[in-house]
Amino acid sequence: MSEADNQLSHVKQLAIVGVGLMGGSIGTGLRLAGFSGKIIGVGRRRESLDIAMRHRCVDGVTTNLGDAVRDSDMVIVAVNLGVFAQTFQCIAEHDHDGLIITDVGSTKMQVVADARRHLPDVSRFVGAHPMAGSEHSGPSSARPDLFANKTCIITPEADTDDDAAQTVAALWRSLQMRVIFMSPKEHDEKSAAISHLPHAAAAMLVHIANRIGGLEIASTGFRDTTRLASSNPPMRADIMTANRDALLHALDVLEQQINTLRGALSANEQDKLMQWLEQAKRTRDDWADSV
Amino acid sequence: MSEADNQLSHVKQLAIVGVGLMGGSIGTGLRLAGFSGKIIGVGRRRESLDIAMRHRCVDGVTTNLGDAVRDSDMVIVAVNLGVFAQTFQCIAEHDHDGLIITDVGSTKMQVVADARRHLPDVSRFVGAHPMAGSEHSGPSSARPDLFANKTCIITPEADTDDDAAQTVAALWRSLQMRVIFMSPKEHDEKSAAISHLPHAAAAMLVHIANRIGGLEIASTGFRDTTRLASSNPPMRADIMTANRDALLHALDVLEQQINTLRGALSANEQDKLMQWLEQAKRTRDDWADSV
Repeated sequence: MSEADNQLSHVKQLAIVGVGLMGGSIGTGLRLAGFSGKIIGVGRRRESLDIAMRHRCVDGVTTNLGDAVRDSDMVIVAVNLGVFAQTFQCIAEHDHDGLIITDVGSTKMQVVADARRHLPDVSRFVGAHPMAGSEHSGPSSARPDLFANKTCIITPEADTDDDAAQTVAALWRSLQMRVIFMSPKEHDEKSAAISHLPHAAAAMLVHIANRIGGLEIASTGFRDTTRLASSNPPMRADIMTANRDALLHALDVLEQQINTLRGALSANEQDKLMQWLEQAKRTRDDWADSV
Repeated sequence: MSEADNQLSHVKQLAIVGVGLMGGSIGTGLRLAGFSGKIIGVGRRRESLDIAMRHRCVDGVTTNLGDAVRDSDMVIVAVNLGVFAQTFQCIAEHDHDGLIITDVGSTKMQVVADARRHLPDVSRFVGAHPMAGSEHSGPSSARPDLFANKTCIITPEADTDDDAAQTVAALWRSLQMRVIFMSPKEHDEKSAAISHLPHAAAAMLVHIANRIGGLEIASTGFRDTTRLASSNPPMRADIMTANRDALLHALDVLEQQINTLRGALSANEQDKLMQWLEQAKRTRDDWADSV
C-alpha cells in the first residue's frame, strides 16, 4: 500500500460536486488508482448525473448536496467559479467534524475568501488547482488520465489543518499529479502571468486580425498563438473576474513590454531588438526543455 | 501539360539565391513537380551549397551570383531580408533582357523599394511571399512539399510586366500553392496583424512570465501561445524592422484592446467581457473551420 493510499484510506465516502470534465475525470481516475471509498456525484442536472453514471465516473449520484455532504468524509467542489459561494453555503449547513473540503477552482484568493466567509471551520478547507483540462467539457469527455504527470497547486494557509492538507495532497498524488504548495496570492499572480494573460492575449490577437484584416492569409503560427481564444467564454469570464487584480497587473506589464518594443523599433535600435528577442527565445527554450 | 508547366517552359535556367530551407525546398519541389529547366543554387558558403547538392535541391551550385544571373531566365532571391539590397545590386550588374526576378521575403514594401532603387528595369521584378516555413532552417531541412496547400502572396504593381507576374504565379502554383495577389502595402499591414504581432506577443508573454514568475507551473496553453517566441531572432528582428510602420500600428491596436479589457474588468462589466470573449471565439472558430 502506497503512502497516498494510506492517507486516503479513512475517506470512506467522497462527494464530487459538479460532474463535468474535471469532476468526472477525478471519479474515474480515482477508481483506476484503486481508491477504496464510495464516490458520489452531486449535480443539479439529472442528465449530467446519468452520463457520469453511464461512464462509471461515480458509484452513485444525487441532486441533494446536503445528503451527500452529511454522509461523506471529503467533498471536492468542481463547479464553475460563479457558483462557489452558494455551494459553500450549502456545504456549511451540513458540515460535520472531520469533513475535508477541497476544490478545483482556477483562481484561489476569491475561492479561499468565499470559504472563509461561509464555512464554519475553514481549517478543514484546502484550496487546490489541478492544472489540467481540455477544450472539451462535460462528463462524457472525462478521462482517468486527465491529471497524469500534470501539476496540482495546493494553497493551504497558516490556519489550515495539516492532516487535511496532506489528505488533499495524497488525493492528487494518487492521480499521478506533481503537487506544489504555494499561497493563494502567489498562485493567482503566477496564473495571471502564465494562463489568464495568455488567454486574454489570444482573444486580443483575434480581434486585431479581424480589425486590421489578414485572416484569409493567416497560418499555423496564428493558429497556435490564438488557440486559447477558442476556450469557453463564460468560464474564462468568471476566471478573469475572479482574478481581476492580478490580471490588471499583468496587463500593466504587457504595456511595459509594448513600450519596450515600440521604443526599440522607433529608435531603430537593432541591437536592443535582437537582445529582447534572444532573451525571450532563451527563456522559452529553457522552459520547454525542462517540462 | 498543365497551364503552369506551359508558362514555365521558357525558363531554361533558374537561379535560386540562398539555398536555405526556402531556397532548397523550392528546388527539390520544382524537380518533383516536373520542372524541365536547370536549377542553379547560389550561395556564399560552400558548405550550404554542398548540402543542397547532396540533398538534390539543385542541379548545380556556384558562389558567383553574376555568372548565375547572366545565364538564367529567372532569379529567385531567397536570402535574409538584411542582404536584399546588396543582392539586388549584384543582380543589376548582370541583368539582361527577359530576366524575371522574384523573391520570398516576409515583408514586401521594403523589398519592392530596394528593387526600385537598384534594378535597371523593375518591371521584370515580381515580389512574392510564400507563406510556409518551419522551426528548422538550412538546406538539410528542405522538403519538396513545404509549400503544398499553403498560400503564396504575389505583389505586382502598376508597372509590373504582366507576363513576368504570370510566370512567377505559375512557379508557385506548380509547387501546389494557392496564389493571392495584393499590393505590397496590403501584404505588410495584414502580415503585421496575423504574423509579426503574434510573434511579438509571444516574446512579450515569455518576458512577462519571466518577470512575474510562474514558468514552473506553465502548461500546454502557455506552450502553444508562446511557440513563436522560439523563432530565429536575427530573422525576426529583420522582419520587424523592415515592417516597422505596420507593426507599430498593430501595437497601437493592441493597446486599444488592452484598454477595452482593462475597462471591462475595472468597471466589473461582466456582459461586456463575455461579449468580447465570445466575439473572439466566434471569429477564431469560423476562421479555423474555413482553413
